[in-house]
Amino acid sequence: MKRKVRWLKASEISMTDNKVISVDVMGGDDAPDIVIAGVETLLKSHAQAPHALSFLLHGDEAQINRLLSKAPLAKAASKIMHTEKFVEMDAKPSAALRKGKGTSMWNAIASVKAGEADAAVSAGNTGALMAMSKLQLRMRQGVQRPAIAGIWPRPVGNCIVLDIGANIDCDEGQLCEFAVLGEAYYRALFGKERPSVGLLNVGTEELKGNATVKATHERLRAMNFGLNYHGYVEGNDISTGDVDVIVTDGFTGNIALKTGEGAAKLMGGYVKDALSDNIWSKLLTGLNYFSIRKMRDRMDPRKLNGGVFLGLNGIVVKSHGGTDAIGYANALKVAMELAESHFQEEIENTLQALHDAELDIEISAEI
Amino acid sequence: MKRKVRWLKASEISMTDNKVISVDVMGGDDAPDIVIAGVETLLKSHAQAPHALSFLLHGDEAQINRLLSKAPLAKAASKIMHTEKFVEMDAKPSAALRKGKGTSMWNAIASVKAGEADAAVSAGNTGALMAMSKLQLRMRQGVQRPAIAGIWPRPVGNCIVLDIGANIDCDEGQLCEFAVLGEAYYRALFGKERPSVGLLNVGTEELKGNATVKATHERLRAMNFGLNYHGYVEGNDISTGDVDVIVTDGFTGNIALKTGEGAAKLMGGYVKDALSDNIWSKLLTGLNYFSIRKMRDRMDPRKLNGGVFLGLNGIVVKSHGGTDAIGYANALKVAMELAESHFQEEIENTLQALHDAELDIEISAEI
Repeated sequence: MKRKVRWLKASEISMTDNKVISVDVMGGDDAPDIVIAGVETLLKSHAQAPHALSFLLHGDEAQINRLLSKAPLAKAASKIMHTEKFVEMDAKPSAALRKGKGTSMWNAIASVKAGEADAAVSAGNTGALMAMSKLQLRMRQGVQRPAIAGIWPRPVGNCIVLDIGANIDCDEGQLCEFAVLGEAYYRALFGKERPSVGLLNVGTEELKGNATVKATHERLRAMNFGLNYHGYVEGNDISTGDVDVIVTDGFTGNIALKTGEGAAKLMGGYVKDALSDNIWSKLLTGLNYFSIRKMRDRMDPRKLNGGVFLGLNGIVVKSHGGTDAIGYANALKVAMELAESHFQEEIENTLQALHDAELDIEISAEI
Repeated sequence: MKRKVRWLKASEISMTDNKVISVDVMGGDDAPDIVIAGVETLLKSHAQAPHALSFLLHGDEAQINRLLSKAPLAKAASKIMHTEKFVEMDAKPSAALRKGKGTSMWNAIASVKAGEADAAVSAGNTGALMAMSKLQLRMRQGVQRPAIAGIWPRPVGNCIVLDIGANIDCDEGQLCEFAVLGEAYYRALFGKERPSVGLLNVGTEELKGNATVKATHERLRAMNFGLNYHGYVEGNDISTGDVDVIVTDGFTGNIALKTGEGAAKLMGGYVKDALSDNIWSKLLTGLNYFSIRKMRDRMDPRKLNGGVFLGLNGIVVKSHGGTDAIGYANALKVAMELAESHFQEEIENTLQALHDAELDIEISAEI
């Protein structure tokens, strides 16, 4: 299901094939260490094509140099962009914005705006990152507010959920926009032609839900612009359903995904206990190494890392603040995959179709 | 952590010790079969004290008799209360209420109202069950709207989450009531003297959240009536945190818990795949039987079954509609444990304290 990244062969590489990721090295609970380690991890896992990807590392030069001395692949593929300032993890977005210019976060986004990088990644303060991204990159035409989309695993493939935290209160117009933004993102990232879209609710019956959810449902059903709208989905459908794109407001989406992550972690703990319960179970676990290893890989929450800001004129990916090198590498990978896709063009087209359909409804209502 | 049910010895049994559970036998996707099987399962697991618990089985007599012929313990402990009618699973609550009298669901609640049973259990339509419960049992004094509380497992012990679906839109007054209802419920069920209470939000920083959540937080902090209020918690704290009672509105709570259940099921699937990946892993799993069995027990979502309606003059427990006999037995067990506890008295006291504290704030504001 998941679109495979095609790593270029040396003969194919040209300047235009080389994707550049701009990195806020100072953002994150364990920055800058895990950020540089994340760059190294990503490059290591794709050692056959190191030159197809390069990095602009925004942050304190001395610290970055120290870390790069232990990360040879990252060192070879990166350019350091020194900054004196960085955004505190607990800064209020408005304050971060006022004092933001010249920080590693600000400059990471500025590289995208200037066309020097194809995407920016940060594990810093989400609110500040969103505020700076909006200010520098601006919303795409036809987008009221950007959303953050998260990827969630399934037994087969993945779904995406949006918004997962950018917009606490959303009206039906915004939720409809999230539907088309998410659909285009899914199409670009996973290559599925007509991904299905569902609206998160407390039940799948028509009569359930709050006023905003009901109004969004009516609108998405009424508009006929080619969206593969499935209708309502419930919380358990995120992990076990088959709808590709799940739309909700940022309050519900954030709590739902964090609850899912917590439950996955709880289950992982139960498994760990069982497999190392005593010397006998440890031995059997050792003998069953490959199956257990595969399971652990599938259960690894770090693979979910990378929330994408949708609706901006540029690609910005937010990593979990508390992630490690493997998680950070996954956030970088999402940025790289998006940079290689046509998702900005996809979004352009579907947004146009959405707003045309809305206009049709308004005109019909007036006649 | 979890309060153990003390099963009475034969010599101790008197009429007052015998708890009676009133059961809506016709409610649930696989009713009446799994309901009777659930009664049998509960009684089987506590075979040493069959007379400490008895059942009023509301439903179609012929069907119940047929099922009881294969359920000897249930047969010995039950009385059949014949009804001709039952509530459809997809009925609109208002319609179910209008035509509700004389249904198995209505009569199950009526037995509690009449004092013939200590608690009622149904796996039927949630909205109808809530509407009928409110109409018959009425809200306790000082409660605006009842809430549904769900139990969630932790590495050690459990937490409870409320509301998980009764109230789609909630104001701060209701959320404060949920805090005291949940706290009293936790105290009664698990015997912890001062359970902690948290408010579900998208972050733990003061500046995060929507207006209602912020207002609730301010109120709970300002009121000084002995509540062990912890502050904000996030979605992942449901499974991995240490706050005992997690308060939220019914829309968010329902979606959060269902998302958690879905994630747990997804992880369970990964484990199952790994343990039966090939003949070798199957063999090793067989050899590791006891550790694996313990893990499966801990991961079993059926153990979570049983949402309790809080704030009514009587105990009503909602089972998942799609559960099986083991899940239903767990819902019955929750009802039994509550019937044996002092939770109605606990609620009475804390509600009084809450409203006194609110009054103090209002008076201070006016002076």
